[in-house]
Amino acid sequence: MCGIIGIVGTSEVAASLYDGLTVLQHRGQDAAGIATVDGARLRLHKGNGLVRDVFNQTSMSGLRGRIGIGHCRYPTAGSEGSAEAQPFYVNSPYGIAFAHNGNLVNTEQLRREMFEDDRRHINTDSDSEVLLNVLAHELQIQDRMALTPDHIFKAVAGVHQRAAGGYACIALVLGYGLLAFRDPNGIRPLVLGERVTPEGREYAVASESVALDILGFKRLRDLDPGEAVIITDDGQLFARHCAEGAVHAPCIFEYVYLARPDSMIENVSVYKARLRMGQKLAEKILRERPDHGIDAVIPIPDTARTAASALAEALGVPFREGFVKNRYIGRTFIMPGQGERVKSVRRKLNPVELEFRKKNVLLVDDSIVRGTTSRQIIQMAREAGARNVYFASAAPPVRYPNVYGIDMPAASELVASGHSEKEVEKVLGADWLIYQDLKDLVWAVQDGNEALKHFDTSCFSGEYVTGLDKQYLQQIEMLRSDDAKAARRSA
Amino acid sequence: MCGIIGIVGTSEVAASLYDGLTVLQHRGQDAAGIATVDGARLRLHKGNGLVRDVFNQTSMSGLRGRIGIGHCRYPTAGSEGSAEAQPFYVNSPYGIAFAHNGNLVNTEQLRREMFEDDRRHINTDSDSEVLLNVLAHELQIQDRMALTPDHIFKAVAGVHQRAAGGYACIALVLGYGLLAFRDPNGIRPLVLGERVTPEGREYAVASESVALDILGFKRLRDLDPGEAVIITDDGQLFARHCAEGAVHAPCIFEYVYLARPDSMIENVSVYKARLRMGQKLAEKILRERPDHGIDAVIPIPDTARTAASALAEALGVPFREGFVKNRYIGRTFIMPGQGERVKSVRRKLNPVELEFRKKNVLLVDDSIVRGTTSRQIIQMAREAGARNVYFASAAPPVRYPNVYGIDMPAASELVASGHSEKEVEKVLGADWLIYQDLKDLVWAVQDGNEALKHFDTSCFSGEYVTGLDKQYLQQIEMLRSDDAKAARRSA
Amino acid sequence: MCGIIGIVGTSEVAASLYDGLTVLQHRGQDAAGIATVDGARLRLHKGNGLVRDVFNQTSMSGLRGRIGIGHCRYPTAGSEGSAEAQPFYVNSPYGIAFAHNGNLVNTEQLRREMFEDDRRHINTDSDSEVLLNVLAHELQIQDRMALTPDHIFKAVAGVHQRAAGGYACIALVLGYGLLAFRDPNGIRPLVLGERVTPEGREYAVASESVALDILGFKRLRDLDPGEAVIITDDGQLFARHCAEGAVHAPCIFEYVYLARPDSMIENVSVYKARLRMGQKLAEKILRERPDHGIDAVIPIPDTARTAASALAEALGVPFREGFVKNRYIGRTFIMPGQGERVKSVRRKLNPVELEFRKKNVLLVDDSIVRGTTSRQIIQMAREAGARNVYFASAAPPVRYPNVYGIDMPAASELVASGHSEKEVEKVLGADWLIYQDLKDLVWAVQDGNEALKHFDTSCFSGEYVTGLDKQYLQQIEMLRSDDAKAARRSA
Amino acid sequence: MCGIIGIVGTSEVAASLYDGLTVLQHRGQDAAGIATVDGARLRLHKGNGLVRDVFNQTSMSGLRGRIGIGHCRYPTAGSEGSAEAQPFYVNSPYGIAFAHNGNLVNTEQLRREMFEDDRRHINTDSDSEVLLNVLAHELQIQDRMALTPDHIFKAVAGVHQRAAGGYACIALVLGYGLLAFRDPNGIRPLVLGERVTPEGREYAVASESVALDILGFKRLRDLDPGEAVIITDDGQLFARHCAEGAVHAPCIFEYVYLARPDSMIENVSVYKARLRMGQKLAEKILRERPDHGIDAVIPIPDTARTAASALAEALGVPFREGFVKNRYIGRTFIMPGQGERVKSVRRKLNPVELEFRKKNVLLVDDSIVRGTTSRQIIQMAREAGARNVYFASAAPPVRYPNVYGIDMPAASELVASGHSEKEVEKVLGADWLIYQDLKDLVWAVQDGNEALKHFDTSCFSGEYVTGLDKQYLQQIEMLRSDDAKAARRSA
Repeated sequence: MCGIIGIVGTSEVAASLYDGLTVLQHRGQDAAGIATVDGARLRLHKGNGLVRDVFNQTSMSGLRGRIGIGHCRYPTAGSEGSAEAQPFYVNSPYGIAFAHNGNLVNTEQLRREMFEDDRRHINTDSDSEVLLNVLAHELQIQDRMALTPDHIFKAVAGVHQRAAGGYACIALVLGYGLLAFRDPNGIRPLVLGERVTPEGREYAVASESVALDILGFKRLRDLDPGEAVIITDDGQLFARHCAEGAVHAPCIFEYVYLARPDSMIENVSVYKARLRMGQKLAEKILRERPDHGIDAVIPIPDTARTAASALAEALGVPFREGFVKNRYIGRTFIMPGQGERVKSVRRKLNPVELEFRKKNVLLVDDSIVRGTTSRQIIQMAREAGARNVYFASAAPPVRYPNVYGIDMPAASELVASGHSEKEVEKVLGADWLIYQDLKDLVWAVQDGNEALKHFDTSCFSGEYVTGLDKQYLQQIEMLRSDDAKAARRSA
Repeated sequence: MCGIIGIVGTSEVAASLYDGLTVLQHRGQDAAGIATVDGARLRLHKGNGLVRDVFNQTSMSGLRGRIGIGHCRYPTAGSEGSAEAQPFYVNSPYGIAFAHNGNLVNTEQLRREMFEDDRRHINTDSDSEVLLNVLAHELQIQDRMALTPDHIFKAVAGVHQRAAGGYACIALVLGYGLLAFRDPNGIRPLVLGERVTPEGREYAVASESVALDILGFKRLRDLDPGEAVIITDDGQLFARHCAEGAVHAPCIFEYVYLARPDSMIENVSVYKARLRMGQKLAEKILRERPDHGIDAVIPIPDTARTAASALAEALGVPFREGFVKNRYIGRTFIMPGQGERVKSVRRKLNPVELEFRKKNVLLVDDSIVRGTTSRQIIQMAREAGARNVYFASAAPPVRYPNVYGIDMPAASELVASGHSEKEVEKVLGADWLIYQDLKDLVWAVQDGNEALKHFDTSCFSGEYVTGLDKQYLQQIEMLRSDDAKAARRSA
Repeated sequence: MCGIIGIVGTSEVAASLYDGLTVLQHRGQDAAGIATVDGARLRLHKGNGLVRDVFNQTSMSGLRGRIGIGHCRYPTAGSEGSAEAQPFYVNSPYGIAFAHNGNLVNTEQLRREMFEDDRRHINTDSDSEVLLNVLAHELQIQDRMALTPDHIFKAVAGVHQRAAGGYACIALVLGYGLLAFRDPNGIRPLVLGERVTPEGREYAVASESVALDILGFKRLRDLDPGEAVIITDDGQLFARHCAEGAVHAPCIFEYVYLARPDSMIENVSVYKARLRMGQKLAEKILRERPDHGIDAVIPIPDTARTAASALAEALGVPFREGFVKNRYIGRTFIMPGQGERVKSVRRKLNPVELEFRKKNVLLVDDSIVRGTTSRQIIQMAREAGARNVYFASAAPPVRYPNVYGIDMPAASELVASGHSEKEVEKVLGADWLIYQDLKDLVWAVQDGNEALKHFDTSCFSGEYVTGLDKQYLQQIEMLRSDDAKAARRSA
Repeated sequence: MCGIIGIVGTSEVAASLYDGLTVLQHRGQDAAGIATVDGARLRLHKGNGLVRDVFNQTSMSGLRGRIGIGHCRYPTAGSEGSAEAQPFYVNSPYGIAFAHNGNLVNTEQLRREMFEDDRRHINTDSDSEVLLNVLAHELQIQDRMALTPDHIFKAVAGVHQRAAGGYACIALVLGYGLLAFRDPNGIRPLVLGERVTPEGREYAVASESVALDILGFKRLRDLDPGEAVIITDDGQLFARHCAEGAVHAPCIFEYVYLARPDSMIENVSVYKARLRMGQKLAEKILRERPDHGIDAVIPIPDTARTAASALAEALGVPFREGFVKNRYIGRTFIMPGQGERVKSVRRKLNPVELEFRKKNVLLVDDSIVRGTTSRQIIQMAREAGARNVYFASAAPPVRYPNVYGIDMPAASELVASGHSEKEVEKVLGADWLIYQDLKDLVWAVQDGNEALKHFDTSCFSGEYVTGLDKQYLQQIEMLRSDDAKAARRSA
């Protein structure tokens, strides 16, 4: 769950990369970085925090050049320190800067190979640094003659053979140009755009089309699964498929929660897909309880608003914003001798009491992961005077961990893991719990582009398109449990 | 347009004041401050920026005490520097810390009196510092014997006689307690709440009830116009009306735009008032164009969403979130040799193109002030492929400056000033422009509390409840014009 | 032990105040501040740390005006927080900014009077804030007519009657000018200078003449004891003696340690006074041990170097810089599991071993206070191989606390308090300890200006020129002990 | 002119590296950095500024590990940006961190080879990064089997064959240990020490012995020219000479100015060498003008003090500290409309006027480079009333640039370049100018260790021990001129 962007322009690109990162910020608020090519030199600035906090006039002024990449990070497996902000850089061969969205499932094996066979030192826990070094090594073993697109595509093919997982990557190769590529299953998204200026044609690649929109780039197309695109320093574009025969299986969670509603992913409008999720939920409700007696449909802001409004429309029930999101949440300070503090959910949401009092309300969220927040929200609705509190999830039960780049807790901490929907209903304290059916979710996305035959739906189904050994899942279980995280942080 | 809060608690209050300010942050993002009473000492920390940026663990740890006040500032007439963050403090008499929401219309006269008659030095351009010194002077001329509620109420009465304008104030009087008071017309809001703890009863006053909600205080009532409330250090509450015979005229703009939807002001739910504004707009549309042919109602996020959803419901037309707000807008950097930058509105809003293509869309905003943004948004809707772009404002035409604490541009910069609705429609480039009627707006609020007979609607009607001399309006015109602001900033 | 400076110039003064403070920095490295008069407004910036760290281009740019004062603080009794950086400011009457070097011995009584009689709130533990409010009150009770020099001199006379202690003060009175005054005994120094520019005559007052030198001001004279000087906004100078009949008794410790060697205080060169201290020490040594057998005279840098070189010259013994001072001492970090850290004195001084090996060395320091450092230095000399280690102090035994503005520990922590010189010799582990005789120290200073008949030598003699009640000394004892300080810091 | 230090300890070393850097700070105040080995990970923190400003508790806490290196930088040819703080790091092979004191004279050629032959990207202008990559490449082409001391010594031998210049280096090889080596002529210093702790033996290497002293390490010996020392992770020490047949020629400027007086370099006490410089100067003075009539010898603080005191002693003339150094110099602020500012030398030094008035003074400095400061100081002495101003330099005329790591201006900016001593005397405005003779300077150092037969005295003699092509000197001339620097800074 990171955002990446790269531009080969005809004039300075740092400000555009910055603007692009701000609209990809929902994909990662943890750290940000930009690298640019300034003649023979790489310029790099990165740090922890929001894009607006990491960069200032001084750091921006240093990011000279008309070619560059940017990254904003959401922490996934193991990457919590500040050393792990991206882009990463290695100086041998050529000088390569690298930004990555996704997660590998064979990191440990690659890390071992890097050290033992290739004598490359990996200095962080980040699988992105591993992936960069795999790429660097594959480039280094190419012929020592001057680089050509063919050399680079062969190196990417080598990466595909060694790396397993979901990954969308953008790299700068000093003295050559920009390289972007996507994993063989096309799990993580990557979109290509162009902009024609008086000085010539410019190209951009980004995690989501919204970053192209905001910069005035025209969306050309999504990169194909396994495809690599090279844009040379002088603006020539080369593309080649570097992996064969893999199933195209984009991550369905991008549509449920991750992506911005105004993005197009694989030619499907995220906003429209969410409307269709709401519509399908309404059909299920009407099917299961024609006399539902619902007085108001109330979304949990912000993501669920789209599905909820379509649901309300389809049910013919008023849509009411019963919860107001606090936009300026501050830190929690430990004060000596202070009384009880505001509950964590209460700090994020405040109910409009009149919308609950003596009503049957249907709360709608995009998905239910741990269930902790949902339970507190349901409790808040009751305290505001609701007669009955129903709860709908626009996604099916989340029962398995995501291993392709979305930060989810260990399976043991997923409220639906190993539990029936009825059991979850009880845990949450809802009077009625309605989950989307997986086939309906798939339909809601597929209806926008019938060419899409498969999706990565592993966190609902437990089926992992890249294959997975049990050991990896156990390791994930250990790494992601809250206790493990707390231990790491205090280390 | 500032947010204020004060608490007399039974244990440390700084963290509660901080949390309260974060939910009042929408009233002012420019500066923030907290003052607490720590034994015989006043603790004060303030600075420019958001609450979350002004305070850190170190500054919070210094704010010891169980009695305190907080302030977040939106710049009004003349107050742009950092010196003007509140609370303000004077050490004679007693030591008084002071936080103020509102604006005076006779500041210059008071400033002169302070210097010439009272030898008090006013060190900023802020009318709040003037008001504090008026209060200090009125307290100083009371009998020198030990302070009593009576002395303080008399001093407040003295303030009411000298100060003209809209003001809600909370002050700390060192060694005595907390004082809150509201202007004789009750223009600016102030609400009182209580919380019962095992250690005793606690009181809080705040600009909006949402700050009480979040802290677990029960809303007791709004302060009356001209009323003052004293809560002594040991928790006793005294209240008295300190001004006679004035018309109660709360600011109607709080309901239109300023306040959070989950607040209750004068016993009226802001959220419900906004729903009624949408409903009234729908009635007007159906009345004027029964065959409107609207395909979708699209709000300009965030404030207009409530009115727009009610409007869509009443029209029976789909409600679509056609604009996505960028939540992470960054700074605009000046880069050497850079190409054209993203347009300012484009940095804030991004259209979901499919929701516009070949449709007749009704865009809804809470109000139209300068018209610049509305015009750009209408243009954006057209570029996204809309067939016809209609535009509705939940408030009537804004034609006059606000002088009671809401930062609005000079009359000459209001798009509707001196222009008919048809003329504005043309300027904005809308295919149809619908303004709420003033009587409908008044009804939408009044329907929540029939005891409210009057409102301050001056920016729509040009009628100022406190009376105003022409000279003051001319001065406002000069101070608030963009040119004037630019000149001051560069000074 | 603070540094103060004030300038009434013909053009911007902030940069000059800054430069002046940097050469007064040895008088206080704890906090710094500057206040200037910018039209009707006071500009003020202050903070904890060195002058070079407290101010940057932004804060300096805000300090507009051609009249201003500056302060650098060394913490004295009770003033450790950041709130206590100076200048202080009160807005009633007139607006007064205030900078103070010294210490009052009747602070508690004044503090009580301020609150009970004058209803003025003192918000810090600083006696400077008390003194400012005494001055403010004395000004407030003058006739309400327009201010004249006569009013101000009367107010200063009032201050002298109420305040007891050592104090040199510089104040800005808004709308009037700059006021400087010195306590009736002239304990703390204050010097007046002028500079003639094409735009007119400028005046400066400062703690030490070196600040005048560096700014190109000509030293005119020291202020007399009890004298006040007013320089009005338009550059007129008025002077008057505001206290009668007091003994002139400048602090002798300024010459021993506090002042810079290149300063002239009371027309005595500090450098020359220190040379004479060395000369007198040599005479004593030759008197007591004609066959001293000293191989090298080694100063403890930096202050003692002057006396030591004169001493070596008079003895006819080589002068050797056997200790090198570390100029870039950093912080002490607590590291997990770390080994033993460098001893505190070792972090400050490093011996040149060859200068000690098998030699009889005479170490020279300006004075001995706690004795801890001296003991460690003697130990270091032994470890470097010295045969005999002799130790000379250019000042007599320090046996009593200083109450007039020099930060010294409680009497119980003075190594010489209640002990004979022989006992101290033993505690320090010196083979021979030589103290300057008090009459010789007095002579060393007096020889530069025979008009000086008395000095404040209280820390050597226990005689306090202002008189003192026992209670105050007990209170000092409690406040200044290390345990007390540790407790305050952790509070 | 940088300081370097490395430690292989038995417990955490970051705090020791920090303390060591603070006493090496005189060798470079421009930037600082520390790298430590924390298990399989390299920890690195560096930045611009003084050691005490670059590190705080947070950054120090991250520098875990018992093996590490530190660096403080004085800018030499071309290195002004913040990217060039050291240690540098490359991840292939093994992961190497690197700190360097010195300068290469064939950087451009190496830079080209690195890129063309070795495909290594050098991202800064620093010759240290070039040297690191040469080392990395030489390590990479060793056998791929597990590393041994033999492999590493061969790699260092390879570095010596390719690199020309003066260099003392300390590197961390991840998973192996610490490596230190010195150029074949031993131009730059590097000293080895040990400390025995209960947990085992610890080793340290540093630019100057004073860093060992302060940390309680015992000085064992200087590294030999061309020698490399390896200390493995488990504390084993290996040493080997990796270059044959080169002349040992330590930089004589270390003794003149660069090193701390309390350091031992090549078994010569820097302090004693300076005393001998003063003695030789005295002999020359007595030889040339037996009736010199000098009243006082006055050092320019701080470095010249040692030589000046010996000179005074030998002449039998009083030694007087006529200039007081300002220890707290601040920034120079540009203020609107301000009057004339303090002259630059006046900001650094202030004369004690009485020591000059009507006297014949001999000012003593360690050396004369540009002459600008000397001229201003002589002028200051005249303004203070000196009758005759003589000026002595403890070093001979500086006529040629230094190319081995000491930052000196271009030859065209050296006051003595192409000029006779008489001409310089005139330029400086001295009544008499006395330069040390080169043979006397050499004697002053050599007298401490007769094994030293040669020195690098190139800036006095123009003879470069490594050989030099004219082109390089021309390039230096261009890079180091003030105009060139100004241009680079504004770029």
